[in-house]
Amino acid sequence: MNQTVRPERRVLAQRVTLAHGGGGKAMRDLIEDVFTSVFAPPGMEDQARLMDASLLEPGAELAFTTDSFVVSPMEFPGGDIGTISVCGTVNDLAVGGARPLWLSAAFIIEEGVEITTLRQIAASMQKSALEAGVRIVTGDTKVVGKGSGDGVFVTTAGIGVIPPGRRMLAESVRPGDIALVSGVLGDHGAAILAARGDMDLTSDIRSDCQPLNHLIEAVLTAVPDIRAARDATRGGLASALNEVAYAAGVGIEITEADLPLRQEVRGICEILGLDPLYLANEGTLVLFVPPDQAVSALAAMKSVPAGRGARVIGKAVTAHPGTVIMKTVLGGARIVDMLVGEQLPRIC
Amino acid sequence: MNQTVRPERRVLAQRVTLAHGGGGKAMRDLIEDVFTSVFAPPGMEDQARLMDASLLEPGAELAFTTDSFVVSPMEFPGGDIGTISVCGTVNDLAVGGARPLWLSAAFIIEEGVEITTLRQIAASMQKSALEAGVRIVTGDTKVVGKGSGDGVFVTTAGIGVIPPGRRMLAESVRPGDIALVSGVLGDHGAAILAARGDMDLTSDIRSDCQPLNHLIEAVLTAVPDIRAARDATRGGLASALNEVAYAAGVGIEITEADLPLRQEVRGICEILGLDPLYLANEGTLVLFVPPDQAVSALAAMKSVPAGRGARVIGKAVTAHPGTVIMKTVLGGARIVDMLVGEQLPRIC
Repeated sequence: MNQTVRPERRVLAQRVTLAHGGGGKAMRDLIEDVFTSVFAPPGMEDQARLMDASLLEPGAELAFTTDSFVVSPMEFPGGDIGTISVCGTVNDLAVGGARPLWLSAAFIIEEGVEITTLRQIAASMQKSALEAGVRIVTGDTKVVGKGSGDGVFVTTAGIGVIPPGRRMLAESVRPGDIALVSGVLGDHGAAILAARGDMDLTSDIRSDCQPLNHLIEAVLTAVPDIRAARDATRGGLASALNEVAYAAGVGIEITEADLPLRQEVRGICEILGLDPLYLANEGTLVLFVPPDQAVSALAAMKSVPAGRGARVIGKAVTAHPGTVIMKTVLGGARIVDMLVGEQLPRIC
Repeated sequence: MNQTVRPERRVLAQRVTLAHGGGGKAMRDLIEDVFTSVFAPPGMEDQARLMDASLLEPGAELAFTTDSFVVSPMEFPGGDIGTISVCGTVNDLAVGGARPLWLSAAFIIEEGVEITTLRQIAASMQKSALEAGVRIVTGDTKVVGKGSGDGVFVTTAGIGVIPPGRRMLAESVRPGDIALVSGVLGDHGAAILAARGDMDLTSDIRSDCQPLNHLIEAVLTAVPDIRAARDATRGGLASALNEVAYAAGVGIEITEADLPLRQEVRGICEILGLDPLYLANEGTLVLFVPPDQAVSALAAMKSVPAGRGARVIGKAVTAHPGTVIMKTVLGGARIVDMLVGEQLPRIC
């Protein structure tokens, strides 16, 4: 029994044990040493108290979203589970027109994970949070026994503010609207595949994992009437386009020759029999804008680093509502359906 | 390849497969059939758009919190992981004086989990959400391979509004303040222990899992100056009191004879060598109020079902700051320290 409960310098274990999930001193030490010292949340209560002037503008709305991240391996070229857990939630807010402000972070840690791994994840999260201009304000840790988890699972939730009058919704897309992407497709999926190491692929491809909120704000300045935005994550471009076609009740036509794909990603896909349209991206945007604003939107995207590789890839049409069709390089046309099953498990 | 993307009646598999985590049709079907049909979130975008008039009152603040839930077994007398995942986050908001409004829900599902299990969890979540008066507005599902998870892990995040002027913070507790609990201690921990079945205990004890926001609002009506509230979850009453002593820099004295404990919980603890002060509760409140308001607070607690078993258990003192001391039934005194390690893994 130890009377001292004031913070003192503690020597943490090298690995997480079940004791770190118990709600006692070991847990508090872990949280203070590894997480709150990095995230510097406001206060140590069970909840963060927050306010932002933008929320009080008449007509402003809150945006709220969550994602769990179970990517395997936890570290990959271009990022790690920490990077993706912040970027993913920031991007989910941003594609709805919200300015991301605050994130929560909950960790489910398998017994035996090294403390240095947790420190790296926390550092990556904080780096991405600073890049996006958001704060990680509240969190939780749980520990599960060996074999009941797999390394670290991270769940983030995010709050943002949608300024008055912004309505970026998939259902707003109309026939004639132009579809653009912000950069090359499939890098995240290909990087994870290569990082898994069980395919004997050597590759220099890095995940495109990055926050997209600044890119979206830049385009909104030039084109306030963006109809809809999507980040093409799980299920890739194909799923993002199908979601829009489904929600808006429009057809979508894209042109294979216009899709920005690295030769190396094409190569990996050919070797493994994968379709790059379904490879995940973690920092690539799909935008729909009115036809007369496509040129301005493209220029605005290209003016920001995250949008340097922007391209027009197709348009919304009245024909075949709910269906995405691609004009192939061979002159034919094929349906780009939503994936039924699973191309790559645990991609994010 | 299937051209139809409009919703049609689908026959879901009986168990979750990796395909359900892939971002494609199987995932959308699972989400629509099991989750959104029950939670009825506003819209199907990546983020929920929200507003509440209470947020616009000058001086109001947002409260934001998150918790992951990994309780094992997932079902226990008095609730399941769905109940606890909603009540836990509602209570984390409420103890800070917030009126809980919106929840997110993220599911990490192990391959092979039965769809009926997911349906039961969703039903329990919705039941607790209705009881608390909150809405589950956004969510996510991920699937991990067999052996990389353990059934279902649920992470909820919650947003509430703290009305202007409310400052319920552990650091506000002052010497002389009275400590009360809302009901019997340790029922959740004891119920989980018995439900695990590996201790050969038969017991009628049910988890106390319940939302506490209505109880807190009832007390606030009678005693607007509640100094601080805590729900005594992981680590039990002992950890909640130590947190307050630590944050406020006060000593805390409690009286063993005043602690409300079921005979059956005492019995289980004696058999297993556990200390009931560290057993988790999931619907039991610890409150600190100014001494002249203790009688009103106690009466207000007893007027609400969740507070029927309320009791004064002790007080804050100037002596031994940071330390909790209990006067024992034998006439002695002992330090009630924060747990160093882990009494019961995966209790919530």
